Amino acid sequence: MVVKIAIIKSGNIGTSPVIDLLLDERADRPNIDVRTFGSGAKMNPEQVEDVVPKIDAFEPDFAIFISPNPGAPGPAKARELLSEKDVPAIIIGDAPGKGKKDEMDEQGLGYIIVMSDPMIGAKREWLDPTEMAIFNSDILKVLAETGALRLVQKTIDAVIAQADAGEAIELPKLIITAEKAAEAGGFANPYAKAKAIAAYEMAGSVANLDMKGCFMTKGFENFIPLVAAAHEIAACAAKLAQEAREIEKANDTVLRTPHMKEGNPGCKTDLISKPQ
Amino acid sequence: MVVKIAIIKSGNIGTSPVIDLLLDERADRPNIDVRTFGSGAKMNPEQVEDVVPKIDAFEPDFAIFISPNPGAPGPAKARELLSEKDVPAIIIGDAPGKGKKDEMDEQGLGYIIVMSDPMIGAKREWLDPTEMAIFNSDILKVLAETGALRLVQKTIDAVIAQADAGEAIELPKLIITAEKAAEAGGFANPYAKAKAIAAYEMAGSVANLDMKGCFMTKGFENFIPLVAAAHEIAACAAKLAQEAREIEKANDTVLRTPHMKEGNPGCKTDLISKPQ
Amino acid sequence: MVVKIAIIKSGNIGTSPVIDLLLDERADRPNIDVRTFGSGAKMNPEQVEDVVPKIDAFEPDFAIFISPNPGAPGPAKARELLSEKDVPAIIIGDAPGKGKKDEMDEQGLGYIIVMSDPMIGAKREWLDPTEMAIFNSDILKVLAETGALRLVQKTIDAVIAQADAGEAIELPKLIITAEKAAEAGGFANPYAKAKAIAAYEMAGSVANLDMKGCFMTKGFENFIPLVAAAHEIAACAAKLAQEAREIEKANDTVLRTPHMKEGNPGCKTDLISKPQ
Amino acid sequence: MVVKIAIIKSGNIGTSPVIDLLLDERADRPNIDVRTFGSGAKMNPEQVEDVVPKIDAFEPDFAIFISPNPGAPGPAKARELLSEKDVPAIIIGDAPGKGKKDEMDEQGLGYIIVMSDPMIGAKREWLDPTEMAIFNSDILKVLAETGALRLVQKTIDAVIAQADAGEAIELPKLIITAEKAAEAGGFANPYAKAKAIAAYEMAGSVANLDMKGCFMTKGFENFIPLVAAAHEIAACAAKLAQEAREIEKANDTVLRTPHMKEGNPGCKTDLISKPQ
Amino acid sequence: MVVKIAIIKSGNIGTSPVIDLLLDERADRPNIDVRTFGSGAKMNPEQVEDVVPKIDAFEPDFAIFISPNPGAPGPAKARELLSEKDVPAIIIGDAPGKGKKDEMDEQGLGYIIVMSDPMIGAKREWLDPTEMAIFNSDILKVLAETGALRLVQKTIDAVIAQADAGEAIELPKLIITAEKAAEAGGFANPYAKAKAIAAYEMAGSVANLDMKGCFMTKGFENFIPLVAAAHEIAACAAKLAQEAREIEKANDTVLRTPHMKEGNPGCKTDLISKPQ
Amino acid sequence: MVVKIAIIKSGNIGTSPVIDLLLDERADRPNIDVRTFGSGAKMNPEQVEDVVPKIDAFEPDFAIFISPNPGAPGPAKARELLSEKDVPAIIIGDAPGKGKKDEMDEQGLGYIIVMSDPMIGAKREWLDPTEMAIFNSDILKVLAETGALRLVQKTIDAVIAQADAGEAIELPKLIITAEKAAEAGGFANPYAKAKAIAAYEMAGSVANLDMKGCFMTKGFENFIPLVAAAHEIAACAAKLAQEAREIEKANDTVLRTPHMKEGNPGCKTDLISKPQ
Ligand SMILES: [Mg+2]
Ligand SMILES: [Mg+2]
Ligand SMILES: [Mg+2]
Ligand SMILES: [Mg+2]
Ligand SMILES: [Mg+2]
Ligand SMILES: [Mg+2]
Ligand SMILES: [Mg+2]
Ligand SMILES: [Mg+2]
Repeated sequence: MVVKIAIIKSGNIGTSPVIDLLLDERADRPNIDVRTFGSGAKMNPEQVEDVVPKIDAFEPDFAIFISPNPGAPGPAKARELLSEKDVPAIIIGDAPGKGKKDEMDEQGLGYIIVMSDPMIGAKREWLDPTEMAIFNSDILKVLAETGALRLVQKTIDAVIAQADAGEAIELPKLIITAEKAAEAGGFANPYAKAKAIAAYEMAGSVANLDMKGCFMTKGFENFIPLVAAAHEIAACAAKLAQEAREIEKANDTVLRTPHMKEGNPGCKTDLISKPQ
Repeated sequence: MVVKIAIIKSGNIGTSPVIDLLLDERADRPNIDVRTFGSGAKMNPEQVEDVVPKIDAFEPDFAIFISPNPGAPGPAKARELLSEKDVPAIIIGDAPGKGKKDEMDEQGLGYIIVMSDPMIGAKREWLDPTEMAIFNSDILKVLAETGALRLVQKTIDAVIAQADAGEAIELPKLIITAEKAAEAGGFANPYAKAKAIAAYEMAGSVANLDMKGCFMTKGFENFIPLVAAAHEIAACAAKLAQEAREIEKANDTVLRTPHMKEGNPGCKTDLISKPQ
Repeated sequence: MVVKIAIIKSGNIGTSPVIDLLLDERADRPNIDVRTFGSGAKMNPEQVEDVVPKIDAFEPDFAIFISPNPGAPGPAKARELLSEKDVPAIIIGDAPGKGKKDEMDEQGLGYIIVMSDPMIGAKREWLDPTEMAIFNSDILKVLAETGALRLVQKTIDAVIAQADAGEAIELPKLIITAEKAAEAGGFANPYAKAKAIAAYEMAGSVANLDMKGCFMTKGFENFIPLVAAAHEIAACAAKLAQEAREIEKANDTVLRTPHMKEGNPGCKTDLISKPQ
Repeated sequence: MVVKIAIIKSGNIGTSPVIDLLLDERADRPNIDVRTFGSGAKMNPEQVEDVVPKIDAFEPDFAIFISPNPGAPGPAKARELLSEKDVPAIIIGDAPGKGKKDEMDEQGLGYIIVMSDPMIGAKREWLDPTEMAIFNSDILKVLAETGALRLVQKTIDAVIAQADAGEAIELPKLIITAEKAAEAGGFANPYAKAKAIAAYEMAGSVANLDMKGCFMTKGFENFIPLVAAAHEIAACAAKLAQEAREIEKANDTVLRTPHMKEGNPGCKTDLISKPQ
Repeated sequence: MVVKIAIIKSGNIGTSPVIDLLLDERADRPNIDVRTFGSGAKMNPEQVEDVVPKIDAFEPDFAIFISPNPGAPGPAKARELLSEKDVPAIIIGDAPGKGKKDEMDEQGLGYIIVMSDPMIGAKREWLDPTEMAIFNSDILKVLAETGALRLVQKTIDAVIAQADAGEAIELPKLIITAEKAAEAGGFANPYAKAKAIAAYEMAGSVANLDMKGCFMTKGFENFIPLVAAAHEIAACAAKLAQEAREIEKANDTVLRTPHMKEGNPGCKTDLISKPQ
Repeated sequence: MVVKIAIIKSGNIGTSPVIDLLLDERADRPNIDVRTFGSGAKMNPEQVEDVVPKIDAFEPDFAIFISPNPGAPGPAKARELLSEKDVPAIIIGDAPGKGKKDEMDEQGLGYIIVMSDPMIGAKREWLDPTEMAIFNSDILKVLAETGALRLVQKTIDAVIAQADAGEAIELPKLIITAEKAAEAGGFANPYAKAKAIAAYEMAGSVANLDMKGCFMTKGFENFIPLVAAAHEIAACAAKLAQEAREIEKANDTVLRTPHMKEGNPGCKTDLISKPQ
């Protein structure tokens, strides 16, 4: 069977750019077909209302809606619309979404909250397209190298497996903490794991400074240093996550979980070997 | 006026994840509305034929199709379909697309060829979702910090400006070389510029090793070291691009080109200042 | 006049090891005489009650009590004892001390709260004397290079100046935030300042993980990764603070505030110059 | 039994700030009680004569006097005073103290000479409180990560054990060379050990340049570059020592010697384990 | 027997400075005697014609001619002259020499082509003696740490062994690719090997940019950035090669092949051991 | 006029590999012709006696003899032989040569003593051809980036200029200290200069450890860590020298002294400019 997955992207978090690619990293997975629908950087109710219904024609087996802050007006509208459909749906969001956990439970929605996918320093005096891309690069590095993205992969792969098997889909209820991310990271060396936890926590703390800089500070001479500092922390977190992975590389213990010929996730650690 | 932009993503290159975000980095640009449509990692004619027509209902002012290798069957089909529509369309692709330049001219399509947006090491024994995300992070860093993404931004912003002004759209014909990327990077320090050129060229050379590893080498014990080496070069390129930017930061000469209140691109270099 | 300063150290925070040295960095300041009295690593009421009275014989012009958490039983006892003496006294402590601000006001005590002088990962399975020294080295680096220690210096130098001039001592009421530290750091380059702010905030966040690891987590297999992660963040903060200073060095704009021949603080930035 | 230890600090060397903390890193060692007495940065006979007698009231089981250059007038006076008491006493000092070895033997004093605890660049045009703290941070890092501080710990722990057991105290006669420090460092990897030896030797060579800059060079334009160079070497030594430790971390072979529940030193290497 | 080796150096490639030292790294090898003859930086037919005949008086068992581009006029003349002698001769050159492979076969010459010993950025506006030395340092690092120089050593050692044994000399026909270099490098860790391959390929790509800058670009404002970028890549390659070796050091698996007491090559990996 | 320079290399120091290239870095200097004659790694009287006379046929305007330790038997023999010729001759050697200063004066020889061109760790258990090349790469980096090689260049260029002008040659008497090297380095930033001085001094201190390891320590388990440590210091020195140059690059103040069209040394600092 080919499982049909509809992914709606409204606005952007660090996980957004690769959410579809995580499921089919070499574009050769036979048992899924993915369509993405997005409203670019904007995520107002207006865009959301236009985009969400586009998934219907595709008749997906399940849907994913990914955006910043699941509690903001646009994402709230998306949850409302998806809740009404009889397509199983998963909300992927960042830390502010943790507070909407119970609401999503009630709405019959699954969720994956990536705690350390932080808000960007969205001030005109700081953020241009280049700085935005750099920040996304750093966060992507952290999420990948700490294990957070593998946990996302694993979680959605489980849903795919259920759909593929014709089973009822059990929607995920997942808050990705540092410990859970690092667990999925599969670190063999405990110092590498500690660095991964540290990197994930550092990335999480970026949000505090960015919020202080964006919403709680007046005067560009005052808020620019704060959002600039936040992005410096993101860069440090990326470097530290990279240190963690380099340790595993140095010991030839990097865990890899590629999708196999039939589409199921495989596993390997010795580099010069075939995945099982 | 609000310019409507339809972006189709089939498969993925380093520029893909941020192409829509580059145009509206803080989600507050008043004069554009973007919709994205994608087929996930896959880019076969089958997916392309399904996705491309989805843009019609949005009635875009212009369309962008972004994918690896514009000459591959899927992207070729996309070019054919877009060429037939009367919506101005721009193809964004990687180095192999350079050879389709004349064909795209004849098809009435604009194009942006990002020469150093290299093929990934797509072998199951190497590439899992985590490694894929890391590679994309590194390439994104290179493209952002060398100036390549600013050149993409600038090029599409020019198209938007024409549409916004109700003028006829002059489709871009752009091959992004190291020199052109670094020029757009706006480096004040010549060693930073040299590092940017070097980083861009290094990223470009990743493709050679990845192609050798993916298509020209038999035996996993032989091709794994090659694709692994290719990704090491990508990581080095990212670090070198970062060095370039750190020099500009140290001299407070980082160029920033955020979108302004009306949606037009602004410009600033002194960090503690407002863009003009 | 020679101002006599009694310093009591109970337990240790990052500022403790150098508090006396900050006032007389080359041991040639003519207008102060310092005595320190300490109870080593321990800071229970029992030790505090024994140590505090030792300052009397020295007849100091003012006293400093430095310890972790000014609200803990030992430091609380110290505040009580010092409050009763007619020697002006300043409490120096870490973030938990912020909550004792009003109490100290009422006790007629001055205070300096170093917000990013974080708790160490005090678990036997992690912390040995070597790890303890490494952590102190990292925190000392952060406090010095972000400007926090200069602010401590400046604040106590002001008290010394008053005592030296025979004026009434105005006790300091200072909470050292990232912004205040970086201000005192005197960074000429705004990215260096941002890195300093980031480093200071990162050091502050170390306390969260250490507290979680030390007090809120059961099982050494669970808490070791947390305190290890906390120390990794401290190490990153030290490296980032160093980056900030290296930028200033590269531009020959490092601010230096040595004590001058008469004991007053001087100032210089060009390296090859004399302080004024 | 609770062993009572009096520590006198006059002036400062890299070991001074943590000498008391090394003995009770988590402030929970039941079998010692420590008092410190210091004269701040100054170490003239005048201060020494005032401070040394203060230990008497505490009735210590043994005393430690730590300062730069045990042969300088102040420390010489301290040795004289301590030699006359019937409290066992240990002198801790830096390389110039090596020449006083025989004299200390005759005085009935123990000693620990930390060969690579170098003189600071004590020129007003260079050294302000911030630079002083940075230097101390770097030296502390070197001493901790090369194993020198563990050797200090071990040596004094042996004295404590004797006192605790009611045995006669055998005073240590120890010159800490690079080889002895690295031996105590417990490096499992021989390249890590070599890096530790190199770092320790580099730190030792700092003293040569600082002495040349401080005492043998006229003109600030001539001596500033020398003391600045000396501190650069200290920073390099710290980084190299850190490399040594990172290797051990990457192999999970870091030796830890925390104090155990009864106060005796324990030992562990696997990070996720309990010390024995 | 003592094998007599004549080495002619005309112009310089990265391998040139150490070619004689590779054969006798501690100057204690009993079974060879080496003479070198060179024409400095110049390699025109005029110099070559003067230098080559100088080897005759030494009556070498075999000769080595090392220079850039074996196809250039000077080296071509050298090949012609050596081909006519009845001394076995080996040409060592860089990548452009690959095209002269068959010609050298016909000339009865052996050859070693070091594919990643790249052309320098030889423009007056860029290259002074200092920059030249830095470039040579970087390339030397790459060649040593990737294994390329060990392969050169091994290849010539085999010739020496034949001469020493009085056997006919089988002249080497060797093109040193990344894979062959890394094989000789003896990396135990596959990521280290991948880094070595990457470093070697990066060094090879330096030549492209240097040739573009030196021969195909007009205007110093245009070619300086290119040759500067080329040297940045060389520096990156050196750093990456160093990373590869540091991994092997961290695992104590560095292969060493020193010459033994009789002059034959030995072998060891554990650092604290004797070679066999 | 074309000045004819004969260079004799016996054994190797860090300066040896590039001494001829320093004079003609792009192989286009019209006013010199160079011949080199060497005995490979060996430098015994036997080789020296064979090699030195070879220069006669070339009829050089002046000669250079470069080797380790000018006081060792081989170099001593070379000095004797050169002293007897009526060709002006310059001895280039490392630190032990300083003690032969007066002797060389009496012999009518010029000299350049490179104080920080240290002895290698020449033990079979450590030094193989690969390690030897790495060490030479590191020392070459230090000598180039600190300014030492520019001082060598400048010194010999002055001799060439005299010969070229038909003037009597004034033989150089030069001891290259850290200060003199850094002066020739032309650093605009004083911290870069301090780093250069530090790097040069560190390289110098390598010799102490190598001598201790090679000549004063018994047992491979004892001397391997020492020579390994020595090479670690060399690597650190190279990195620090690189930091110095990167600062100058970041400020676009790198001094370059290429040879000009007529062969005279030129000068430039702004990268995008022509030398004068
Ligand atoms: Mg290992
Ligand atoms: Mg393995
Ligand atoms: Mg500026
Ligand atoms: Mg200045
Ligand atoms: Mg272990
Ligand atoms: Mg081994
Ligand atoms: Mg600058
Ligand atoms: Mg300039």
